[in-house]
Amino acid sequence: MALAELDRSHTIQLVGRHDLIESTLVSMLAGKYAGLAQQRSRLSIVDAPEAIDMSEKPMAALRAKPRNSMTIGLSLQVKGESDAFVSAGSTGAQMAASTLLLKLMPGLRRPAIATLFPTANRPVVVLDCGANVDCSARELLQFAWLGGVYAECILGRDNPAIGLLSIGEEPEKGNAVVKEANALFAAADFNFMGNVEGRDLPAGGTDQGALDVVVCDGFVGNVVLKFYEAVTPMIVGLIQKSCGIEPATLARSLGQLDYSEHGGAPLLGVRGVSIISHGKSSPRAIMNAIKVGVRAVDSGMNNLMTERLAASEQKHQTAEAS
Amino acid sequence: MALAELDRSHTIQLVGRHDLIESTLVSMLAGKYAGLAQQRSRLSIVDAPEAIDMSEKPMAALRAKPRNSMTIGLSLQVKGESDAFVSAGSTGAQMAASTLLLKLMPGLRRPAIATLFPTANRPVVVLDCGANVDCSARELLQFAWLGGVYAECILGRDNPAIGLLSIGEEPEKGNAVVKEANALFAAADFNFMGNVEGRDLPAGGTDQGALDVVVCDGFVGNVVLKFYEAVTPMIVGLIQKSCGIEPATLARSLGQLDYSEHGGAPLLGVRGVSIISHGKSSPRAIMNAIKVGVRAVDSGMNNLMTERLAASEQKHQTAEAS
Repeated sequence: MALAELDRSHTIQLVGRHDLIESTLVSMLAGKYAGLAQQRSRLSIVDAPEAIDMSEKPMAALRAKPRNSMTIGLSLQVKGESDAFVSAGSTGAQMAASTLLLKLMPGLRRPAIATLFPTANRPVVVLDCGANVDCSARELLQFAWLGGVYAECILGRDNPAIGLLSIGEEPEKGNAVVKEANALFAAADFNFMGNVEGRDLPAGGTDQGALDVVVCDGFVGNVVLKFYEAVTPMIVGLIQKSCGIEPATLARSLGQLDYSEHGGAPLLGVRGVSIISHGKSSPRAIMNAIKVGVRAVDSGMNNLMTERLAASEQKHQTAEAS
Repeated sequence: MALAELDRSHTIQLVGRHDLIESTLVSMLAGKYAGLAQQRSRLSIVDAPEAIDMSEKPMAALRAKPRNSMTIGLSLQVKGESDAFVSAGSTGAQMAASTLLLKLMPGLRRPAIATLFPTANRPVVVLDCGANVDCSARELLQFAWLGGVYAECILGRDNPAIGLLSIGEEPEKGNAVVKEANALFAAADFNFMGNVEGRDLPAGGTDQGALDVVVCDGFVGNVVLKFYEAVTPMIVGLIQKSCGIEPATLARSLGQLDYSEHGGAPLLGVRGVSIISHGKSSPRAIMNAIKVGVRAVDSGMNNLMTERLAASEQKHQTAEAS
């Protein structure tokens, strides 16, 4: 699917068990995807005989299985043989392997998972959605820079509007870290919309205008993301049951809430491209994740992030030294 | 409305500006509620000439306006002239006045706002929904006891199943406080279901079974609550627009998601009854909040909470001493 939609100059490396991928490819190109058979040369197989199970502890699994698909796939970037990595495997293992192999951008304390939240209007980038818990205010500030560049480069948002997730719009509302972060955000050179609340996420904005990025700790972000992923089908199920609407009709009307439209969630802040896809991803979602990877590379997203982070850290170091 | 549904032995005190309440009552009992005119003696008016604005800082407002409806209404309980208090005014002011006037139960560190979350199945009690941020593990443990008794006394749930909100079901998942709380919960004498995730809230349970209570810090609880309150109308709006379903039909099919069915959110842990209703409450929601107040009093909820808290604190003090 991605082969057909991507520019012809792009090739795809399939990392995993060689024999399994080969036999699947053969049957796909002989069957449903016969139209793509002549493009077989754009696909290559990279053997990774070991697989990390969802239930394994990430670091232990990476050590115990050095020939797993995460390690081998990400190593291709380190060797300059690949530009982006997409996986729908264990999120923990992908985060750990990406951080270890690709390394973090200079000055960055922790990477962040950026997820696109469907809203009543345009999607909003929410980060962190689970890479880090117990974040400091300075870490949240770095997430704001990462998320802003992502919105700019991948979504084409000019001067992205950034909100800080809290429990009241006043700067003095929130927990200790969020209150401290509010002051850092207010002093930063980005378009800060102030604190936003849980209700502003489905709306995609506040009274002040549309939001592009919402920053939060990975604990809160992960809880809200998983709540969102579950509450939509729950409400739809209730309506379907009692109104007797066709599932297909409902699916059409809720197209904008479909996560697969937006592809995967990139791990921002690593020196490379690593896109985390949902374990239940459809072929369409994987294709969109690959497209996000292509856009990340083509737009020079990482260079811009590195620049912005450096400028922000510089400002704080100067302030601390004086 | 509540007058008609409550047992005849109950009376209602209306606390606020005497002249305003009097004139409103006169016109209501002459008009839409004429059928209740003979029950006028069950209503009394308690004058509270000052009002706290939603935007005022709670403590400052309580000091500056000693004759506000919160202070006067809650003082009735202190004087033994009233059993429960319901308000749809400033949440912050109600929390502060309730804590100051009614005082906390012995050994309790902080009170908690308990909200009923509608789910695909039975509603789940979520606490804290905004009374406290930056909670300790011991505070979360106390919330579990408060929530459990609430589920037992108000919802009639036997041996309520209690979950701890986190970002993975394994005990080692979560932020520092939640990991510590998981160990305390596991050692407590209640029906602990382990960590639950954001997705388990709309479902009303996990693979292990139905949930009755979910415990979290007031920051996370408030973000998720406000998200939930906004996401339902957003999804319904999208469906309505594209499927052309009648709003009334949709409202019927979503009856179980209607917050007004569940009345207000009690501030648990105070030595009295203080129920926080939404600023946008319908008459029906206020009636249901009054009913929750009646049930709290009739069931002896506070005595049971005091007992359970004392037993839990006793256990920890004994452990710490040995």
